[in-house]
Amino acid sequence: MSRITVLTGGVGGAKLVLGLTRAVPAEDITAIVNTGDDFEHLGLAVSPDIDTLLYTLAGKANPEQGWGRAGESWGFMSALRELGGEDWFQLGDGDLALHVLRSFALRQGERLSAIIARFARAWGIAATIVPMSDDPIHTMIETEEGVLPFQHYFVARRCEPAVRAIRFEGVGAAKPAPGVLEAIGSADAILIAPSNPFLSIDPLLAVPGIRAALVGCRASVIAVSPVIGGKAVKGPTAKLMAELGMKANAAAIARHYDGLIDGFLVDERDPPSDLPVAEARCDTLMLSLDDRIRVARAALALAQRLRG
Amino acid sequence: MSRITVLTGGVGGAKLVLGLTRAVPAEDITAIVNTGDDFEHLGLAVSPDIDTLLYTLAGKANPEQGWGRAGESWGFMSALRELGGEDWFQLGDGDLALHVLRSFALRQGERLSAIIARFARAWGIAATIVPMSDDPIHTMIETEEGVLPFQHYFVARRCEPAVRAIRFEGVGAAKPAPGVLEAIGSADAILIAPSNPFLSIDPLLAVPGIRAALVGCRASVIAVSPVIGGKAVKGPTAKLMAELGMKANAAAIARHYDGLIDGFLVDERDPPSDLPVAEARCDTLMLSLDDRIRVARAALALAQRLRG
Repeated sequence: MSRITVLTGGVGGAKLVLGLTRAVPAEDITAIVNTGDDFEHLGLAVSPDIDTLLYTLAGKANPEQGWGRAGESWGFMSALRELGGEDWFQLGDGDLALHVLRSFALRQGERLSAIIARFARAWGIAATIVPMSDDPIHTMIETEEGVLPFQHYFVARRCEPAVRAIRFEGVGAAKPAPGVLEAIGSADAILIAPSNPFLSIDPLLAVPGIRAALVGCRASVIAVSPVIGGKAVKGPTAKLMAELGMKANAAAIARHYDGLIDGFLVDERDPPSDLPVAEARCDTLMLSLDDRIRVARAALALAQRLRG
Repeated sequence: MSRITVLTGGVGGAKLVLGLTRAVPAEDITAIVNTGDDFEHLGLAVSPDIDTLLYTLAGKANPEQGWGRAGESWGFMSALRELGGEDWFQLGDGDLALHVLRSFALRQGERLSAIIARFARAWGIAATIVPMSDDPIHTMIETEEGVLPFQHYFVARRCEPAVRAIRFEGVGAAKPAPGVLEAIGSADAILIAPSNPFLSIDPLLAVPGIRAALVGCRASVIAVSPVIGGKAVKGPTAKLMAELGMKANAAAIARHYDGLIDGFLVDERDPPSDLPVAEARCDTLMLSLDDRIRVARAALALAQRLRG
């Protein structure tokens, strides 16, 4: 198998992509990343999922908190507070360099995809990281308390308000970023990372052209389950599924991806269930680097098996 | 004497204003600050002279380097370098909070003067700090190597290229910021800080209306000499004066301010010279806080004497 394309969101997806870079040559991997979480904060363009992947692949991620840089300092936030600035979203001092440079380049007319490619090159990342789109798309959460922009729901409100629906503002007019459709069309295997299907993968699938490219591609499409024994490893997947009227299990997620995926990698702890697609099982909990490599290999093996 | 207005640039001026706040009630002081050094760096609006004054009056200035914050950290600069960002201008982590909040507020349409007033309030600064103008003015240095924007001349090129002329781009269309002309008109004493006359005070005087307000005001206008024994305490004043064909002494500076000032506070070490205005002498070197208070008092005493 030579070319691997991964659709991914934040932390969980970044773990899988890191595992992949140790299972196959990193040059053969393209990660297409959700940008529905992107937002402007204090005038700075922040791309949380892309940055998590950049930090993870560059070996700069903070392993404890699951976002931001290792060894980060917080002089900016402390001065911001003195000045009465909004402090609900944490911006580390080193992290700010990404946001300042990205905002500056965007204002000068550079595309997000080109900026991210520059950052990845500067950090010696061999895998290709592509935003799902260079056009602004904003994930908006319709909650019992009204409509919240994603980061307000996720960070400021800690996913507390019950979700009624999710929409992706701007997606109708958006185009896939350069390289996205090509990476899907030319892939030998396509993985959907164990990211939140509704918040991280759905925005990606909503970009006009991406779903059709996946349906029409020659590669097997394998999803890795983001739930283990009815619980999400991290984040609001299980709570969200309950609020959206689903059981938080692999079968419900496989049905959510119905028509799109050829195989599903499920955790070995999950009870047996009738999946509408081919199934493989392994321990999908990714705590160590070895875990990440194991899950990546299991997903690739399923793709290989289905390719026949 | 009740209301004191100071025209000021960067470090030297900030020292005098700090001394003033310990000599008279800080509420009675208005500092009108040069913004010709302001520039946009990496998309951030930086106001070096205003920030130096803010830091000095808030007790947050770095006493060694003469700019920036005490106890500053440098995580941003180090990450910026990793990413190949321009690193000739130092932006400390805490310092960034000022620049990010200012840039954000300016983009939202708030005036610089209103933003600075907010910052000063947040830091409990009782003196009034007013930019010379809310309109963009850029000090441009015509050097033997071509025209350089101020910060490129001052920071990136360390004042090395010989200066032929100085101009203030945009000043013709600029208006004094709200409060500037009032602070001059209502003042009981006006001080010109020992800042660089050509780089820090001239841009201020070039804003339409400010020079006329000074000439027509009821207060005595007192300049504090920025040279001591033919040398500038800090910065390029002496070198610049030589390049502009002047001797770097108090008399040359008094002549530069001719028609504008009523009195000149000269260092006691200076040789006697025929000044075109009333003179007072003291030790004008401001190393300690006591020095700053002494110089402030001497300048106010000269103003008082001339008011007589």
